[in-house]
Amino acid sequence: MASPDESVRAIVLAAGLHIPVLLARVEERLATLAASHGPLLAEHAGATIAAGGKRLRPLLVLLAAGSAPDDASELVACAASVELVHSATLVHDDVLDDAPLRRGVPTVWSSGGRMLATATGDLLFSRAFAELAATGRLHAVRALSRASSALAEGELLQRQDAWNAAVPVDRYLYRCELKTARLFEAACELGALAGGAADKEIAGLGAFGRRIGVAFQLLDDVLDVAGSPADTGKPRGTDLLDGTVTLPLILARERDTALAAVDLRGTVTTPRQATSICERIEATGALEDARAQAHAMVVDAKAGLSELALEDGQRRALQLVADSVVDRYA
Amino acid sequence: MASPDESVRAIVLAAGLHIPVLLARVEERLATLAASHGPLLAEHAGATIAAGGKRLRPLLVLLAAGSAPDDASELVACAASVELVHSATLVHDDVLDDAPLRRGVPTVWSSGGRMLATATGDLLFSRAFAELAATGRLHAVRALSRASSALAEGELLQRQDAWNAAVPVDRYLYRCELKTARLFEAACELGALAGGAADKEIAGLGAFGRRIGVAFQLLDDVLDVAGSPADTGKPRGTDLLDGTVTLPLILARERDTALAAVDLRGTVTTPRQATSICERIEATGALEDARAQAHAMVVDAKAGLSELALEDGQRRALQLVADSVVDRYA
Repeated sequence: MASPDESVRAIVLAAGLHIPVLLARVEERLATLAASHGPLLAEHAGATIAAGGKRLRPLLVLLAAGSAPDDASELVACAASVELVHSATLVHDDVLDDAPLRRGVPTVWSSGGRMLATATGDLLFSRAFAELAATGRLHAVRALSRASSALAEGELLQRQDAWNAAVPVDRYLYRCELKTARLFEAACELGALAGGAADKEIAGLGAFGRRIGVAFQLLDDVLDVAGSPADTGKPRGTDLLDGTVTLPLILARERDTALAAVDLRGTVTTPRQATSICERIEATGALEDARAQAHAMVVDAKAGLSELALEDGQRRALQLVADSVVDRYA
Repeated sequence: MASPDESVRAIVLAAGLHIPVLLARVEERLATLAASHGPLLAEHAGATIAAGGKRLRPLLVLLAAGSAPDDASELVACAASVELVHSATLVHDDVLDDAPLRRGVPTVWSSGGRMLATATGDLLFSRAFAELAATGRLHAVRALSRASSALAEGELLQRQDAWNAAVPVDRYLYRCELKTARLFEAACELGALAGGAADKEIAGLGAFGRRIGVAFQLLDDVLDVAGSPADTGKPRGTDLLDGTVTLPLILARERDTALAAVDLRGTVTTPRQATSICERIEATGALEDARAQAHAMVVDAKAGLSELALEDGQRRALQLVADSVVDRYA
């Protein structure tokens, strides 16, 4: 398993040195935007954006665009706008989850309250569209608004499915697509559009993003059940406690009839009970199967790239990103 | 004082019969959008949109466009998108206020919970931009994203100013501009753009919208202090209870030194205490002065219209809308 630093180094080696330069410009742009709406937003949105993590979505935008354009400002705006939508979602999620910390940093919700966090999320959403509209690319605005509608729709579906352990696999996968994969897809489409790709490549790169996005969400859901000993000690089974039924439980219920009969809402209400259900899910082998499904999607995603007219380095870099989605949870 | 029905009839008489036809198409479009994201959204967003009220913002879009265009679909999309942003804000506001009812209809927050309401608001926001992007008018997307950023920024400023009774008038007026007037401005700009207006008329109609928007917010804030005997029995002074300092209190504090010394957060915590402060504000004559400021803005807004190259009926209709903002609170 490659460390994060190694995998970034390998991606840069494949795609070219313009990538870290452009990523640094995206960071600058995000910092400027966070600072441009007064001290309150600068503090709260700035902290969220800074805590945002790996910048996987901006990286996808940049890689999908191919070689460095003469004027990269449009590409930087696209990458920033995708990250702004992602950050807006994180801020609102933290409100909904009453989450005190994200990546060890106090959330906007915990430091500023519900009202501030809701408004901060709304502002980040709006700024994303303002940023993209300024590029003059209507197709890009459309792609991002579709993705952002999908994100919210995914949240709504998850609410609708809450506590329903009998949710079908297809429905679960559709939720993953809405909640996570559509923004990955939009990131790739935006980059391809900005890079002047042909229609086939725009669609193909979008499909790549969607596939690794579903895999990403699936592995995230596996992690919630499997627990992550090397990680921050996040408790196992938080999804179970808020009624979110994911693939590991769906698969495990087919194999363990006693587990299938468990009433989540009635009997899984403490972290200890959640951990115990996680152990029973694990005992059925459902985690391996869920992981295998995610890995198969990543293999598919990588195979799809070979049918597209891409630069060799670009294709290799995108394959490495796909691998990093798997490695992250290996 | 004209009844709402009379004032709508007068506006239609002035502007033309295409207005009610197009307003009906906007309603249809909003209903279609609310129904297009599954039953949960249809129920909750549909209820919010239906309870949305007077459709003042879509009306401004249609009137700013002038005579009926051959193909009105773009205009209808613009009007729908402005109302969607407004509805999104209402849904999020209800979450923040823990409001059980809006116009007598249960809010999304009360019927579906916080999570559902936050996601519903996010979806309405996203759909607004998707709707506008589909029209192919980038200027329109920019105008709406600016307005929508301003709305959120206004909320943030209001949070920042909470409990600060010494907030300056300028700052208060700027908050009104952000929270309310910028969306009125965008509504007029979007209509003018869709109607093919010249730059001077686009800017002038935008300024008209901004002025009546500030007046609208100002009179709304006066109403919160004055109470509205004919109305639904909404309690007086709800703004005071959540720390929102508005023009009546700002003006009254200059005249009543004992009132100026009141610590809102410490001593105004019950509806009865709030009512008592409202009575003291009223006794200073601050309500009349605040109303007079709003009326002066409406006069300014109407005067500005005479400098623009508009159709006579269009100008008269817009003047009637400006009057209706005042009448609403007369």
